[in-house]
Formats: sequence, C-alpha cells, structure tokens
Amino acid sequence: MTAIHERHLFGPGPSNPYPEATAALAEPLLGHLDPLFLTLMDETCDRLRAVWGTQNARTLPLSATGSAGMEAAFVNTVHEGDVVVVAVNGLFGRRMCDVAARCGAEVVAVEHEWGEPVDVDRVLSAHPDPRIIAAVHAETSTGVRSDVAALGAGKGDALLVVDAVTSIGGIELRADDWGIDVGYAGTQKCLGVAPGLAPFTINDRAFERRVEKPRSWYLDLGLLGGYVGEAQGSGGRTYHHTAPTAMVASLHAGLGRILDEGLQAVWQRHADAGRRLQDGLQEMGLELFAAEGHRLPELTTVRVPDGVDSAAVRRILLERYDLEIGAGAGEYASTVWRIGLMGRNARPDAVALVLTALREVLEEVRGTTVPG
Amino acid sequence: MTAIHERHLFGPGPSNPYPEATAALAEPLLGHLDPLFLTLMDETCDRLRAVWGTQNARTLPLSATGSAGMEAAFVNTVHEGDVVVVAVNGLFGRRMCDVAARCGAEVVAVEHEWGEPVDVDRVLSAHPDPRIIAAVHAETSTGVRSDVAALGAGKGDALLVVDAVTSIGGIELRADDWGIDVGYAGTQKCLGVAPGLAPFTINDRAFERRVEKPRSWYLDLGLLGGYVGEAQGSGGRTYHHTAPTAMVASLHAGLGRILDEGLQAVWQRHADAGRRLQDGLQEMGLELFAAEGHRLPELTTVRVPDGVDSAAVRRILLERYDLEIGAGAGEYASTVWRIGLMGRNARPDAVALVLTALREVLEEVRGTTVPG
Repeated sequence: MTAIHERHLFGPGPSNPYPEATAALAEPLLGHLDPLFLTLMDETCDRLRAVWGTQNARTLPLSATGSAGMEAAFVNTVHEGDVVVVAVNGLFGRRMCDVAARCGAEVVAVEHEWGEPVDVDRVLSAHPDPRIIAAVHAETSTGVRSDVAALGAGKGDALLVVDAVTSIGGIELRADDWGIDVGYAGTQKCLGVAPGLAPFTINDRAFERRVEKPRSWYLDLGLLGGYVGEAQGSGGRTYHHTAPTAMVASLHAGLGRILDEGLQAVWQRHADAGRRLQDGLQEMGLELFAAEGHRLPELTTVRVPDGVDSAAVRRILLERYDLEIGAGAGEYASTVWRIGLMGRNARPDAVALVLTALREVLEEVRGTTVPG
Repeated sequence: MTAIHERHLFGPGPSNPYPEATAALAEPLLGHLDPLFLTLMDETCDRLRAVWGTQNARTLPLSATGSAGMEAAFVNTVHEGDVVVVAVNGLFGRRMCDVAARCGAEVVAVEHEWGEPVDVDRVLSAHPDPRIIAAVHAETSTGVRSDVAALGAGKGDALLVVDAVTSIGGIELRADDWGIDVGYAGTQKCLGVAPGLAPFTINDRAFERRVEKPRSWYLDLGLLGGYVGEAQGSGGRTYHHTAPTAMVASLHAGLGRILDEGLQAVWQRHADAGRRLQDGLQEMGLELFAAEGHRLPELTTVRVPDGVDSAAVRRILLERYDLEIGAGAGEYASTVWRIGLMGRNARPDAVALVLTALREVLEEVRGTTVPG
C-alpha cells in the first residue's frame, strides 16, 4: 500500500464512520462468548430496536453485509412455490427478485420506471393472495423514498419484507407502526459504521411462518436465536458461529452516538443536509433525477450535464479533493451521479465542500462558469 | 459498557490480533470501488494465495465469518443428490454434514471417536464414487490434526473440500500440493485478525463442476468472480455487494505481518509455543486429550482434573487475569479445556502466563500444590 488517503466518502456508501465507531474497532478485542461481549451484543440489539422502531425480540446484527440481510429475509420465509410480489423501482428491487427466486419463490415483479417511487396500488393488486410483499424503502440506485407504511396497511395476510439499507438511521423508519414483518439493513450508510454487518429484525408473525430448516445454515434464524435475542436474559447461550466482535463493538458505538444525539435530531440533520445539497445543485443548473416529493435527503441523484464525461469528473474529484461520489446504477452509469451525505457526513460543511468541488471541476471540464 | 478490558484471548479463537491488523481497522475508511481499495483487495488475494499454498485465481476473502466459508464450499459444489463423504471427528465435521445436507447432498458421514485424527482409509473406502470428500484439517473442537495430503492423494475423481479455519497461518498448509480443490478458513485464529472474513480458495477443476445458479446469491462464486480474482488485472470490475473494507484492510495488514516474518518462521513459532505449553501441562500432571502424534500446536486440548469445576476455573482466569481459555466442545464441555496460542499469542511469554495462571488457580480450587 501507498500512503494512507483520507477520503470524503460522499457516494452511495460506505460513508465516513462516526469517530466513535472507528475508535471502537481498535479497542482490545473480546471473545464472542465473553460475558462482556454478550452484554455488548445485548445492548447493540436494544439500540437496533430503537433505530428500527420495533419491539421485536429477534432484532440482531447478522454477521455479513446488507446483501446477506436480503438473503436471510427470503431464505427464512420463502417456502417452495410461495408467491412473492416484489416492487421493482431500482437495482435492489431487481436483486430481491433474483434472491427470492433462488429460494424457490414464484416471483411477481411489479416494474416501475427508475426514479419513481413504488406505486402502492399496483403492488397491492398485483396478485390476489401473495405470501410475501417486498419493497425497498430507500432505493440506493435511484435516491427514491417509497411509502412503506401504505404497503403495510394494505398487505392483508401477506408478510411485508422491507429493505432499509439506505434509510435506517437517516430518515423516519417505524417498523412496528408501519407493519414491517421482516426488515434488513446495512451498517455502512446512515448508521455511520464500516460495512460488514446486516441489522435485521423479524416479528413473531413472520417467525412463526418461517422455513423450519432453511437452505442456509449460516443465516438460519432458528439457530441464530439461541445466540442472541431469544435467549436474552435467560443466561443460556448456544454457540452458533463466531460473531465478528470488533464490528459489533463498532456498531454498538455508532448506535450509541446516534441515540445520544437523538434519533429525531439525526433525521433532521439528514433532511437539512439533503435539502441544502439539492437546492445547491439546482442553483448550479443541474437537474435532479429522482421524482420530486420522493427524494431521499441522504442520497441525491443528479443528471450528468450533456457533454460532460461523468467518469472524468469523478476521477478529478477523487484525485484532487479525495472526494468520492458514485456513478449511476445500471443503465444510468454514465448519465447520473449519486451523492450521499450519510451519517457523519450529513453536515453543512460536507454540503459546502461537495458543491464547491463539483462546481470547480465542472467549470474546468466545460471551460465556462457554472451559475449558483 | 463498563471499562475496557484487555483480554488475553487464549481460547479456541478469536485470538488477539496482530497490532498491525488492529491499526489497519482504524485507518481512514475506503470505498469498496475506490482504486486504492481494489489494489488493496488484489494484494490481499495475493497474500492469501501465499498462506493457502495455492496458485488458484479464485482465492479471496468472503464477506462473512468462517462458517459462511463452509456454506460457500458446499452451496457452490453440491448438485441435488450428490454423494458427499464427510470425515467426522469433531464438531466441525458434524456441521459439514448439516450444511451439505441442506444443499441437497446425500451425506455419507464417517464417524470417528473425538480426539482421533481422520482415518484416511475408512474415508476413502466409504463410498465407491463420491462427488465430494470433505474433512477438517485442524479440528477446533478437539485439537487434532488430520492428514489432508493423504486424502488428496486418494480422492480419485472426487473433489476434496477442506476446512482450514484453525490451520491456516499456524501449521503447514499446501492446498495445491495436497490436492485441495476447495478450501475455506477464518481470519480470527492463526491469521491474527478479528473475526469477520472467510479466506476462500477454489481451483479450476472444482469451479468447472460448480452449481450454475446456487441457492445462495450472496455466496455465489460465479457472481463474486466479477469483483475479485477473475477480473484481476483486466480492469473490469462488477459490483456485487459492498465489501467490508475495514476488515479487508485489517486482513491485508495481518497477512503482511505474517509474510514479513516468513510463513515457515510463523509455523515454527506456533510449533514451539504449542510444544512448550503441552510439555508444561503434562509436567503439572494434566492429561492431554488429543491423540499423541496428532496434536495441534496452536490449539491444545487438556482434560479437566477429577473433582475440579471446569467453569469455575475459567471464570477465575477471566476475572482475575483477564485470560480467556475455552470450554470443551459438545459432550466434553465440562471435562476438557481448550487453550489456543494462535497468531500473535504463539509466544513464550503467553505460554508462561497461561501455565502460571492455571497452576495458581488449580492450587487454589484444590487446596494443594500442583507439580511441575
């Protein structure tokens, strides 16, 4: 490795971790069965309940990244041949279809134009009696927020599976009030912790309908329950696998920082930063990609101006300013940028930096002045 | 959390990380698509090839713990109904049977007494034409080393799947020379890195026979290949999932430390520490559990003396000396201790500490002098 670079991580994730989360990574390591670690794990699960907005006993950090959370959601709930209705309004909805199908689901994909929120009526009427309805709360590929509460209100007998990877810790999320039966997330976005864990929650209703012996041993919630959640307070712990103790300690610290600041205050901070960024981009004459009224504050999508080399701009930002923004996803790879201001980065100084740097680079590559 | 405790992690893992590995965890985080991170990932894969003893292009750290490595091994290679012969001489051989069966295997379990090495002849003659033969190189539950090279020499057309979780970086391991087709490991034992990643390797022979679309999306080696390994040097990277960048940086640093010291020297250090520990325990009148001639230096199993409360001794060691040793596994939970001197802890000072502390506690709980 060459010299260490301090990057501004303003892409779609990971974001720069909260300092408390980074410091915890380097604290002396604990064993996964140490009483001190078990206490830390219990507290972490409590803190996760707070950010999920849930009372679910089975709320825990899975020992893998957010995508494994998606897999855990489906591998534990999809019985062979179950109808799963998936709202697809971006890359992660599309991925849900793939993962659910591998678990044996009969997938009914409800396609949307990218940049648009989920059409709740179309999703709810896509099948007369689905076992599962699945949707992404905050689409990382497009920067769009969808109305999960409305899906929960209309789900009927179906289970509602929700991807909260980019929403948790950044915008309002109320798993219990909104009728979310199974939810998964990641640590590396608005929670402000390095990537590596998948915060997960499942309620009793979904757990009772679960697959008794899922194809995955690693993600089998029936087995995992013996290690966290269910056994909490009983004193009886069953070894399942070696928990990633450094990462859990880091998540514990990051969540502590968020709850100390106050969840409402953190949401407000994200809302403010996102608004400032989106206003500033429009003042520069740039066009936002996500549909108005459904834009995520923590992840902004903006169209690359005509004639501008998207990758060249990103490269200059990275090399000169140590500033990372994301390319667009899928077919929008070269026509959209994704700018994330998540967790620690949801601050006015970050907004000012990214707007200034982007203006300077755009003026340079276009040879003209940018308004705003 | 209460005050930070600095534990001596002398159980079956995790071990105390190398200082270089801990420091890397706290360095500024990189994005998973940052060119600097891709270089770091490539170097990590190169370093993993060195400790595996392989030239396999598909050698990478999976983004989950060692148990997910086991799952990846089987979910990518077991086609419905395939005969998988598993050598079971401890907990992890038993787990292999469970995981392989969930992947659709017809499992032929070859049972052994715990504490004994794998009987190569019995395993090789257990079925006339198995698709896969699987064994644990270093059984974490019993402290026993088995002869993987002999299994490789006699495997015929079968694929050889090997668990190297507790052997990698601690004792001789030569994946290519020994005929290992698929291998998985963990970071938290002799590699001296926190738990959270599964070093994995698969050769062309196994990859060509793989399941085209395995049940697991997260562990699908066909998809993962686009992100690391196969694409190395080609410049083309496909996003699969967000790599746990802090953990990969830590693994990179831990492996760097090992290779700087020299792999042979590291093996010798483990051998020396294990011999000193095992000699010392026997001089104290204690009886080793693993069969003589097959004892792992990095993980020693010793019988709890008659009349001694196993858990009480472990509790005093932890509370007074901040020293963790492991209980026995399975039915040996209260009759065997497991003492690991792995990675950073494979040193004479660690041996001296654990022997002295154990002697003091045994004298206290028994009210007599312990010899040696």
